[in-house]
Amino acid sequence: MDLDLSLDGGALTASLVDIASVSGDEGALAAAIEEALRGLSHLSVHTDGNAVVARTSLGRSERVVLAGHIDTVPVADNLPSHVDGGRLYGCGATDMKSGLAVQLRLAARAVEPCRDVTYVFYDCEEIQAERNGLLRLSRHHPEWLAADFAVLMEPTDGVVEGGCQGTLRADVRVPGERAHSARSWMGRNAIHASARVLEVLNSYLTRQPEVDGLVYREGLNAVNIAGGVAANVIPDSCVITVNYRFAPDRTVGEAAKHVRGIFAGWDVEVTDAAGGARPGLDRAPAAAFLAAVGGTPRAKLGWTDVARFAALGIPAVNYGPGIPEIAHTQGEYVELAQIPECEARMLAWLAS
Amino acid sequence: MDLDLSLDGGALTASLVDIASVSGDEGALAAAIEEALRGLSHLSVHTDGNAVVARTSLGRSERVVLAGHIDTVPVADNLPSHVDGGRLYGCGATDMKSGLAVQLRLAARAVEPCRDVTYVFYDCEEIQAERNGLLRLSRHHPEWLAADFAVLMEPTDGVVEGGCQGTLRADVRVPGERAHSARSWMGRNAIHASARVLEVLNSYLTRQPEVDGLVYREGLNAVNIAGGVAANVIPDSCVITVNYRFAPDRTVGEAAKHVRGIFAGWDVEVTDAAGGARPGLDRAPAAAFLAAVGGTPRAKLGWTDVARFAALGIPAVNYGPGIPEIAHTQGEYVELAQIPECEARMLAWLAS
Repeated sequence: MDLDLSLDGGALTASLVDIASVSGDEGALAAAIEEALRGLSHLSVHTDGNAVVARTSLGRSERVVLAGHIDTVPVADNLPSHVDGGRLYGCGATDMKSGLAVQLRLAARAVEPCRDVTYVFYDCEEIQAERNGLLRLSRHHPEWLAADFAVLMEPTDGVVEGGCQGTLRADVRVPGERAHSARSWMGRNAIHASARVLEVLNSYLTRQPEVDGLVYREGLNAVNIAGGVAANVIPDSCVITVNYRFAPDRTVGEAAKHVRGIFAGWDVEVTDAAGGARPGLDRAPAAAFLAAVGGTPRAKLGWTDVARFAALGIPAVNYGPGIPEIAHTQGEYVELAQIPECEARMLAWLAS
Repeated sequence: MDLDLSLDGGALTASLVDIASVSGDEGALAAAIEEALRGLSHLSVHTDGNAVVARTSLGRSERVVLAGHIDTVPVADNLPSHVDGGRLYGCGATDMKSGLAVQLRLAARAVEPCRDVTYVFYDCEEIQAERNGLLRLSRHHPEWLAADFAVLMEPTDGVVEGGCQGTLRADVRVPGERAHSARSWMGRNAIHASARVLEVLNSYLTRQPEVDGLVYREGLNAVNIAGGVAANVIPDSCVITVNYRFAPDRTVGEAAKHVRGIFAGWDVEVTDAAGGARPGLDRAPAAAFLAAVGGTPRAKLGWTDVARFAALGIPAVNYGPGIPEIAHTQGEYVELAQIPECEARMLAWLAS
């Protein structure tokens, strides 16, 4: 399971895809990455569980992090990888082993970068947040992550995606009163009364605020509804679970207050929330990165681990090969041409 | 576990309550009833599983059935029975062991009734329809059930309740299109779109038709709603299960057509249906019964096994001690005074 970092980015991506690394089972890939990095004398290498961190120590005035998760969603009969029509297919091809290939190629090639670089490879991103390897690293070894700027190499189709939106889930509970369904007028039907909650959602006007020069687009949606006691009973409860995706100009607290205000007539319980991250593209390290890689940046609408860097006080952007929309699909692939292009742009940045 | 049919109706009810007979576990009570009836020489006794049927054979011009189920819903820490303030408490006190006590007392006392009588005691009424003992009897021994009129001794608070309403369940399916909830505008939210189904239910005007002189009251209600794929996905399906309780002037086919018409814009699947029964109070046997027991009859709104008699061509009514509204509750009870009153009225009818 040796990784040959002299292979071109596409071939290296294929090698990475062919070492299966479903969340929680990343040992083989972590070992291969560690071994490949230990062969590079300009890097010091550290590990924590299935996370691997490699750092240059050139005494540069600026340090940047290039980070990527090494796990994938479950294999769906899409291994080993194969190439067809300029595309590499296979589990993790887009999310995000092509990004890892760029990280590894840069680690091998950027021997004397103008910025000190910390390469972070971490586990368990695709599953519940408390197992996230980047979260664990930030608790066990925050000093390993210290930096002025971070690039999370998630698939962005080769365009810089700044910051990320926050996400909040809440249960909106509609009460009722039970009765036998043959005498429905003796009760109050909680499912029928839920129409008003759905009307609130249907008439909700979403914000599209501009934050640090990028336009975000919010959303407030029901992602679950559940009501019913028995087939012959007027139900006394119906719960609508809503998901609020909010722009990074709002904190979690502000988002929660907003949702409670929207559903002021009902019992609202916030069950889950994670703050977003401002893009920070107006700050020096991000601006330099953007100038080097080019293109028109856009807002990241989904939540990503850039929010963890933001929480550590490190501005971060998303940038990498691969198409976000096909992540987690059986047929995911990466356009092979995107990989060396991304690598070349980042290499130019590290040299500038 | 002997049953003493010379006990008064309240004491006999207590004996019946104290022989637990949860659906599927009626063996002990069925055996006790069979033994008690076999001691009555004017009756011929038959059994089928946990059902017991006893018949007079006096060659009368008319035969009537008195029927009751011997099972109860699960015991809820409400055994043994106890008496408090003129009420007998305990599992099945109202539904329907007080009715069984009246049946058994009549079987013992009405030695030479003016109508031939068939006493039917059957199992598994409180659970899924295919296990219903009356249904089984109607298949194995339809001749045992042959009669001109039937009285189902379910709790009716001592008032004749004529016929019963039908019941139909249908799943109304609202489609959508999946998308990541951070890009909700790329999908169509099936839960949001369900608002229109709930509005149809909220604006539905129920019928209150008069059938054979009794006024029924229909109802169309959601009894379940389920939608949602994952916490970060715009759902592509939401299913609302509706329950239509329809008056006995409509057949199952007419009820299904009505529901499909109401929800014409959606995919509607009828999952379950049972026809009602007309009260038939204008027909001779029912009119004679009504004249004998007195009171103002009312429509039965819930579905009961009178519909099975209707399907066999036998007009039937519900009449018995006990309060239908407290059936299946932990605190169910029967007013002791109702039991001998009901027995006396029915004895007068059988003697007239």
